[in-house]
Amino acid sequence: MASLDYFEDEEYPPDLSEDRLISLVSQIKDWQINHGSLLKRVHSETENSVLSHPVGCFPSAFPRERFQQAVEVQEIFNKLYCSIAEDEDLIYNTIKDLLPVEPLAKALWGIHEAARDAGYVQDISAGVFRSDYMLHLEGNPSKELTRDISKTQLKQVEFNSFSCSGFSHANKVANMHRYLARNGSYDVNEKPFPIDSLPKNYNIESIARLLTSAHLKYGPPRSKLATHTAVLFIVQPFNFNIADERPIEYALWNQDDSVPNYRLDFPDIIEYTQLTEERALLFHPPWLPSDKPVEISVIYQRAGYEASEYENSGFDARFQLEKSTAIKCPSVLGHLTTFKKVQQALTVPGVLERFLKSSEIARIRETFVPVLPLDESTAGLEARQIACDVERSANYILKPSLEGGGNNIYGNAIPAFLNSIATSEWSRYILMEKIHPPDANNLLMGPACLDGGKTVSELGILGCCLWQKSKTQQSDTRCDLLHNSVGGWTFKTKYSDIDEMNVVKGHGCFDTPRLVDF
Amino acid sequence: MASLDYFEDEEYPPDLSEDRLISLVSQIKDWQINHGSLLKRVHSETENSVLSHPVGCFPSAFPRERFQQAVEVQEIFNKLYCSIAEDEDLIYNTIKDLLPVEPLAKALWGIHEAARDAGYVQDISAGVFRSDYMLHLEGNPSKELTRDISKTQLKQVEFNSFSCSGFSHANKVANMHRYLARNGSYDVNEKPFPIDSLPKNYNIESIARLLTSAHLKYGPPRSKLATHTAVLFIVQPFNFNIADERPIEYALWNQDDSVPNYRLDFPDIIEYTQLTEERALLFHPPWLPSDKPVEISVIYQRAGYEASEYENSGFDARFQLEKSTAIKCPSVLGHLTTFKKVQQALTVPGVLERFLKSSEIARIRETFVPVLPLDESTAGLEARQIACDVERSANYILKPSLEGGGNNIYGNAIPAFLNSIATSEWSRYILMEKIHPPDANNLLMGPACLDGGKTVSELGILGCCLWQKSKTQQSDTRCDLLHNSVGGWTFKTKYSDIDEMNVVKGHGCFDTPRLVDF
Repeated sequence: MASLDYFEDEEYPPDLSEDRLISLVSQIKDWQINHGSLLKRVHSETENSVLSHPVGCFPSAFPRERFQQAVEVQEIFNKLYCSIAEDEDLIYNTIKDLLPVEPLAKALWGIHEAARDAGYVQDISAGVFRSDYMLHLEGNPSKELTRDISKTQLKQVEFNSFSCSGFSHANKVANMHRYLARNGSYDVNEKPFPIDSLPKNYNIESIARLLTSAHLKYGPPRSKLATHTAVLFIVQPFNFNIADERPIEYALWNQDDSVPNYRLDFPDIIEYTQLTEERALLFHPPWLPSDKPVEISVIYQRAGYEASEYENSGFDARFQLEKSTAIKCPSVLGHLTTFKKVQQALTVPGVLERFLKSSEIARIRETFVPVLPLDESTAGLEARQIACDVERSANYILKPSLEGGGNNIYGNAIPAFLNSIATSEWSRYILMEKIHPPDANNLLMGPACLDGGKTVSELGILGCCLWQKSKTQQSDTRCDLLHNSVGGWTFKTKYSDIDEMNVVKGHGCFDTPRLVDF
Repeated sequence: MASLDYFEDEEYPPDLSEDRLISLVSQIKDWQINHGSLLKRVHSETENSVLSHPVGCFPSAFPRERFQQAVEVQEIFNKLYCSIAEDEDLIYNTIKDLLPVEPLAKALWGIHEAARDAGYVQDISAGVFRSDYMLHLEGNPSKELTRDISKTQLKQVEFNSFSCSGFSHANKVANMHRYLARNGSYDVNEKPFPIDSLPKNYNIESIARLLTSAHLKYGPPRSKLATHTAVLFIVQPFNFNIADERPIEYALWNQDDSVPNYRLDFPDIIEYTQLTEERALLFHPPWLPSDKPVEISVIYQRAGYEASEYENSGFDARFQLEKSTAIKCPSVLGHLTTFKKVQQALTVPGVLERFLKSSEIARIRETFVPVLPLDESTAGLEARQIACDVERSANYILKPSLEGGGNNIYGNAIPAFLNSIATSEWSRYILMEKIHPPDANNLLMGPACLDGGKTVSELGILGCCLWQKSKTQQSDTRCDLLHNSVGGWTFKTKYSDIDEMNVVKGHGCFDTPRLVDF
């Protein structure tokens, strides 16, 4: 793998003495304990056993120009995805082949149809998006170091529009690296670490602000029965990510104009909510202080992304949310935009033109790698040829529509995998050209290891949106953007020789970019 | 035990439904994990195992009038103890009987003598004090409820002037209770919890501010060898209280005008520090980024309160600190003021008059319970009569000079205890009349239990001081107060039938007062 020559005359990360390394590791642990940067939570009445989440010991180097590019293109991506979320036809055409083979797609589309037939009563939606990128070094990777940043491109791994996570962790890790940089832990040879190379991170505040905007947009309760309005966090029971979700709740409560918010496990939706005649969503769990219910203004979804959640009453539950007057973050059509099939559809000539101006299109398109379908279209049949060829498939990744990663098949393992499943299932997948990120170096610290090596990082950009379905339905004015901003970023780093980036499953860690000018 | 009738027509804490209680407990755990309110830390390279510290589920009721009284008398207590810290004669006369029998007193006095003989080179000291109080219900406790607050007095348990802890925990618990109060967890019957009844807590900020003042007062480095000045936190190795110490360090680093600070284990003082010719204290551990040392402006002591620490090189270590130009928080004479013998001496007529005006004296004296020596003075011999009498001793507590509690003997266990030790050791102890606090009610949550019952609370007031030895040595102007303020409070609650209040050892928990007007 090629490396980027970030630091001509500097070794980075520095080769710390054992004493300094021990001190650094100890400071990282103390910081994480003191700031609640924890990942697992084990249920017990006697003891809370927690794991600190893995982290980069040093901020990993990343080109400032590419970081800026990712930030600056996000508002266009926000506009694009909000528009797609109001384009029922495009979404249907994109996912229809999934419906017979992909239970999650089937459930979600079915919920949309049911809500549409009942009549949607809320045309405003909210979005907390995350666009993920890696650097790509053109041509055949070689061992040659390079300081020519023009050869390195920003390429989109995927665009996430539903239940995006990691923002609170990123916010805290950024603060931790800043603290370590300030206290000299990274200084070498009298040279202080350049603190300006660390971007600031306000993710938690940004998301809280977006939810507040939506909450205020909803207005006062529509139902006379309700005591007040509140944001509802739909979460998975016993989930491991309370340290990523709770900070947003606390931020909302702590504001001078406190925004009330409550947590509800997805399986309990039917039991603890109900609709009024005008379909206001009332929330009445037994732990509320009052017998009177609360009316939900905004539904912030951190559950409902796994097919199994829609067995039993899950379908009715999500349907109830969708047909209510509450503002969904996001709507079920917005949820469907997160499918990789949509990512693939956007690479087809003419599709971006449906939503964006030409000046915007170029900036979006330059972040795309080729993404092919595996259906029975012309493009799909050609892609099947590649996928079934042991040599040609080496430069591709096979990705299912499923959320959450951990299900990709890499390179020349693809032909054997496709051989092992029914051909009728092939259209569930997309075939994506591999991104070839150049290496950096870092020391990564996890629960069971502390090790140095060649690393690659994935930059995520937080997009915060509030949009309203247009009254007219022409392409260019499909939706009105009430709020469109970049809220912050995430940064994950893994060893170069690991395929999968998935921090919560143990592959990779949270990190901060050290922005480098070339 | 009598109870105070805090709430005429209200049950407090409310009898929550099981659902509401489960929700409350879960919220408390999540809050503690997310905010680093943790007590134990187990060393391991693979996993950090931590315990949340015990906490009151609800803020415990406490009379506002008494809380205000404690806050308002603190500046006088600060002045008193800063003055005593500059009164070598009084300190010596008070502790001289301890010297043959109390190794800690002997070590500390020895260090003072050595530093005095070498010549003190820093006449400014800093203090982070904690004055602890309980309510006292006059007369024989009975089961009669009362709403007459004049019958309830504020009585001082003790005054701590060295290595006081609990301030960060208190700050966080106050924020937690405020969050729970805001989100309706304590609401009953449509009545919102009165948020104004919860005092705010800025302990961490106050202590950081005091250390910053001292650091700025020290000025630039005196030594050409040093890169910069910094505050040094002297701590115990593998200590359980990093979650109480670290927040102050982070606060200092996070200030716009960052105050550099470092941690040093007490046993490593000799190895990692040295004095210049003018006795500036240079700090040069192997984990500093530079080969050049740092000069210490302020020594914030969170270790050196146990006799065993002065075995081996501990004496030389503390001596080195004391004779340096660094500002000590506090000086060794300041440390000696924390001994219970001093508390006893202050009850002797004429002693307060040495330091305070008469208007100040009355307010101090009204917080004292009778405290008797057990030496061979007239008062001491009378006290011995009481202590050896199974009936009369019932209303007393025998307290040694040792720090940290856990060594008191209660009531009629005293005669047998005194019988079991040599009479020559008796002068190590003081005999203090019991305080009889009225009960409140609460649900206390610890690692191994969740239980309700009658409770009593101990209020601590944080005093922040910077003082300078006066040029003249007359009683009234013994020291000049450069800074004298109330920085905040702590509040600990335990079951009424437990004698000892010691959160870190498992007796009692951190809490917030719900201030009640009578």
